Amino acid sequence: MLEALKELVYQANIDLVKHGLVIFTWGNASAIDREKGLIVIKPSGVSYEEMLAEHMVVVDLEGRKVEGSLKPSSDTMTHIALYKSFPEIGGIVHTHSTYATAWAQACIDLPNIGTTHADYFSQDIPCTRMMTLQEVEGNYEEETGNVIIERFSQLNPVHVPGVLVCNHGPFSWGKDAHDAVHNAVVMEKCAKMAHIAYSVNPELKMNPHLIRKHFLRKHGPNAYYGQTF
Amino acid sequence: MLEALKELVYQANIDLVKHGLVIFTWGNASAIDREKGLIVIKPSGVSYEEMLAEHMVVVDLEGRKVEGSLKPSSDTMTHIALYKSFPEIGGIVHTHSTYATAWAQACIDLPNIGTTHADYFSQDIPCTRMMTLQEVEGNYEEETGNVIIERFSQLNPVHVPGVLVCNHGPFSWGKDAHDAVHNAVVMEKCAKMAHIAYSVNPELKMNPHLIRKHFLRKHGPNAYYGQTF
Amino acid sequence: MLEALKELVYQANIDLVKHGLVIFTWGNASAIDREKGLIVIKPSGVSYEEMLAEHMVVVDLEGRKVEGSLKPSSDTMTHIALYKSFPEIGGIVHTHSTYATAWAQACIDLPNIGTTHADYFSQDIPCTRMMTLQEVEGNYEEETGNVIIERFSQLNPVHVPGVLVCNHGPFSWGKDAHDAVHNAVVMEKCAKMAHIAYSVNPELKMNPHLIRKHFLRKHGPNAYYGQTF
Amino acid sequence: MLEALKELVYQANIDLVKHGLVIFTWGNASAIDREKGLIVIKPSGVSYEEMLAEHMVVVDLEGRKVEGSLKPSSDTMTHIALYKSFPEIGGIVHTHSTYATAWAQACIDLPNIGTTHADYFSQDIPCTRMMTLQEVEGNYEEETGNVIIERFSQLNPVHVPGVLVCNHGPFSWGKDAHDAVHNAVVMEKCAKMAHIAYSVNPELKMNPHLIRKHFLRKHGPNAYYGQTF
Repeated sequence: MLEALKELVYQANIDLVKHGLVIFTWGNASAIDREKGLIVIKPSGVSYEEMLAEHMVVVDLEGRKVEGSLKPSSDTMTHIALYKSFPEIGGIVHTHSTYATAWAQACIDLPNIGTTHADYFSQDIPCTRMMTLQEVEGNYEEETGNVIIERFSQLNPVHVPGVLVCNHGPFSWGKDAHDAVHNAVVMEKCAKMAHIAYSVNPELKMNPHLIRKHFLRKHGPNAYYGQTF
Repeated sequence: MLEALKELVYQANIDLVKHGLVIFTWGNASAIDREKGLIVIKPSGVSYEEMLAEHMVVVDLEGRKVEGSLKPSSDTMTHIALYKSFPEIGGIVHTHSTYATAWAQACIDLPNIGTTHADYFSQDIPCTRMMTLQEVEGNYEEETGNVIIERFSQLNPVHVPGVLVCNHGPFSWGKDAHDAVHNAVVMEKCAKMAHIAYSVNPELKMNPHLIRKHFLRKHGPNAYYGQTF
Repeated sequence: MLEALKELVYQANIDLVKHGLVIFTWGNASAIDREKGLIVIKPSGVSYEEMLAEHMVVVDLEGRKVEGSLKPSSDTMTHIALYKSFPEIGGIVHTHSTYATAWAQACIDLPNIGTTHADYFSQDIPCTRMMTLQEVEGNYEEETGNVIIERFSQLNPVHVPGVLVCNHGPFSWGKDAHDAVHNAVVMEKCAKMAHIAYSVNPELKMNPHLIRKHFLRKHGPNAYYGQTF
Repeated sequence: MLEALKELVYQANIDLVKHGLVIFTWGNASAIDREKGLIVIKPSGVSYEEMLAEHMVVVDLEGRKVEGSLKPSSDTMTHIALYKSFPEIGGIVHTHSTYATAWAQACIDLPNIGTTHADYFSQDIPCTRMMTLQEVEGNYEEETGNVIIERFSQLNPVHVPGVLVCNHGPFSWGKDAHDAVHNAVVMEKCAKMAHIAYSVNPELKMNPHLIRKHFLRKHGPNAYYGQTF
C-alpha cells in the first residue's frame, strides 16, 4: 500500500544524506496521506546505506503500525502530533544537522537576519522551551510534539516551516516530504550564517522591511519569484 | 541570438555550483553585450540541475524580455542598474555564499587584512547602507542597484569588483561573467579568512603598503604577476 | 593468525579515513581477542593508502610482538592499558580529528549539551589531567593509559565510551573496533556542535532529564530505539 | 634538464590542490638541486588544471631563468632567499590555505598547544614582523625572504619547518618538495585546531613536557615513531 508515497519518503530520507544533514541513523523523514489518514515514515535505527523504499513503515494517526516488517522511527509520535495540529503540512523531517542542532543546544530562537532566511521564514525560527521531568518521563516523543505545538500557538506553520527543539535539534516541514527536506537545508544554512554573522558583529540588526519583502516575493498571492507554469 | 554569450553565462552559473557558492536557486550570473545593449541572465527560480544554456533569458536595458521562454532572474533590475552605472564591467554574479552572506548580514565592510584580498581588491569590500521602507516597497531590485551605486560614489568598480548588500548578500562583477564568478569565490574565501582572523586576534592591523603592493603586482601598467602572452 | 580480526581492524582504520577523522598517519584502531589475550593493531607510521590487512600487527598484553613484520603503533601501550582496565571493551580508536582534538587541546571536559551526545554518552566526555614530567619522560604511552584510567575511577567506560587526553586528542572505544570508530565520529560531531553552541550562547544549559532519557532510550534493558532482530 | 625534479615539483604543486590548500593560482612549490645550484619552481599565474610537468621553470640562485618557456612564480626570490639561508632544506611551499592564512593575517605566532603540532614543530610556528615601506617598495619578494630569515635568527628551520608571513600567509619547507607539502597540511590543520581550541578555552595552557616528548618521539637520534626499514 501507498507505494508511491513510500518511494517519496524513501527518497527524502536519502536526500538528507546527500545534503550532508545526517550521518548514521541521525534523522528521519515522513509524509502523510491525508485522505487515508496514514503516515509513511523511516524505520527506527536503520542505516541509510542498507535502507530500501520497501522498508518504509505505514502507521495510522494513533501510531499503530498498519504495514511494514520493521519498527517505525522512535520519533513517530512527534511527527503524528505535528500532522494532527498542522493540517496544512504534508511532510516532516527531523535531523541532527550540525549548525541547526548547535542552535537548538544553545536553546535560543534563530534570528531572521538575512534575506536567505526571509525567503523561507516570515520571522525568527522559534526554539521550544525546556521540557519538564514529567514530559520527558511520560510520552516523551508525543510531548516533544506538544512543546512544538505550544510554541506555535501564535505562529503559522506554513509561514514558519521549522522549529528548534531545545537541547535536541531541528524539525522542519512542508507541503510534502521533499519540501520538508528543502526547509531542513535552509535551516542548516541559516544557522551557519547566523553563527558567523554574530561572531563578526554581535550588534547586527536586521531590516524588518526586508524580511517582509523577501517573504512576500516568494510566497502569497503577489509572489513574483520563480516561474509560473 | 547571442548563443555564444548564453553559453558563457550558462557556464558561469554552473561554475557557481562547482565552487560551492550556491545551492538550490540561490544565485545568478549575467553578462552584457555592450554593442547590442542586451543582457543575458539566468531564468528565475530554475534549479541548476535542470538548467540548459538555451534557458538563458535575453533582456534589454529597460528589463524588457527580448528572447527566452522563461522569466528572467528576479534580480535582473539590480544587474541592469549596475551595468548602466559601471560601463567597464561585462559580467555580474549574485550569490548567497555562506561567509560573504554572513558578513553582509553583519552589515559591515569586509576589511582588507591580507594579500589574498589585496590581490583582487584595492581596499575594503564595502557594505551598503540599510534600505528604507520606500526603497524596499518601491522598485526593490532596482533600488538595490541604486544603494550599491550610491556606495560606489567615491570608489572605482574595476579596483573594487564586489560589494556586500546589507542584510542580503554579495554581488561581484568583472570584465566578463567568468571573471565575476572568480571574484565571487575570492569574496567568499576572504570573508571566511577574516572571520577566523578576527576571532584569533580582534586587534589585528593590516599593513597598508602591502595592500598597495599586492594590488599593483597583479593590476595596472606595472603588473608583473602571471604570464604575458 | 587472527586473520578475521586483522581484517576488521584494517577496515576500522580505513573507516577513520572515510569518516574524515584522520589524514596521513594520524590515528590508529585496534581490537582484542579476550580468549587468546592478543591484540591486533595498526602498524606505526604507515599511511592508509599503502596499508593492507596483512600489515596489522599482533601483540600480547605485555606489548610484545607475536606476529607481523612491522612495528606496532607507538600508542600500543596506551591501548593495552585500557584493555586491561576496561574488561568490557573490544576495540579502541585514537585519532587527531579536528574538533575533538581542539577540545582536548583546550583541556576541558566536553559538556553533554544535547541529545546527539546523550544518545551515546551518559554524561560529559571527560578530559584527563595534565601529565607530569615523570609520566611524560617515563613509559609515556602506558602513562597516557594510566591518566585515562585514573579519570575513569568513578566512571563506567561502557556508558562513557571515550575520553579527551589533555593537550593531545581523543580516544574512544566500544564492544569492537567498528563500534569504537562509530564513537570516534560521535565525539567529533559533538565537539563541533558544542563549539558552535557555546559561541552562540555561552550561558546555555542542558536539560538533565533529557540526558538520562536519551541515553536510556538507546541503552540498557528498557531501550526502545532501533530494531530488535 | 632536471626532468625527475620537475616531475616531483609538479606533483607537489598538484598535491596542494588535492589537500585543499590552494584554489586558482594561490600557491607554489619548488625544490632545489644543491649540487647543480638550480631551483625548479611553478610558473607564475598558471592554473593547476592546465599545468604540466614540462611547465616547471628552472632558475639559478640569482633568480635568472635557466630553462622554461614561462615566467617563474612571482615568489621565486622568496624561495631563493630561504634556500640560501637554510642549507638543510630541499623543498619549499607557499599557499593561501584558509586557516594558516587567517593566523598570518592575525599577525601572531601560532602557539604549540597540542601533540599534533608538537609532532612536527619543536615550538610555536613563528610569525614575521610587519614589513616596512622600504622593504615592500624595494625587492619585495626577496625582502619577504629576509624577514623570514630575520625571524629565524634564533630558530632551527629543521625543527621549525614553517612560518607565517604577517598579513600574507604561510611558507613551509622540508627535505624535499613532498615534505614541504606535508608540513603545509600540518600548518593548516594546526591553525584550524588552535582557532577552535582558543574559542573554547581562551585560557588554555600547553604542557611543555609534551611538546618536547612528541617532537623527539618522531625526530632526532632516539625517535621511535614509524618504521625503520
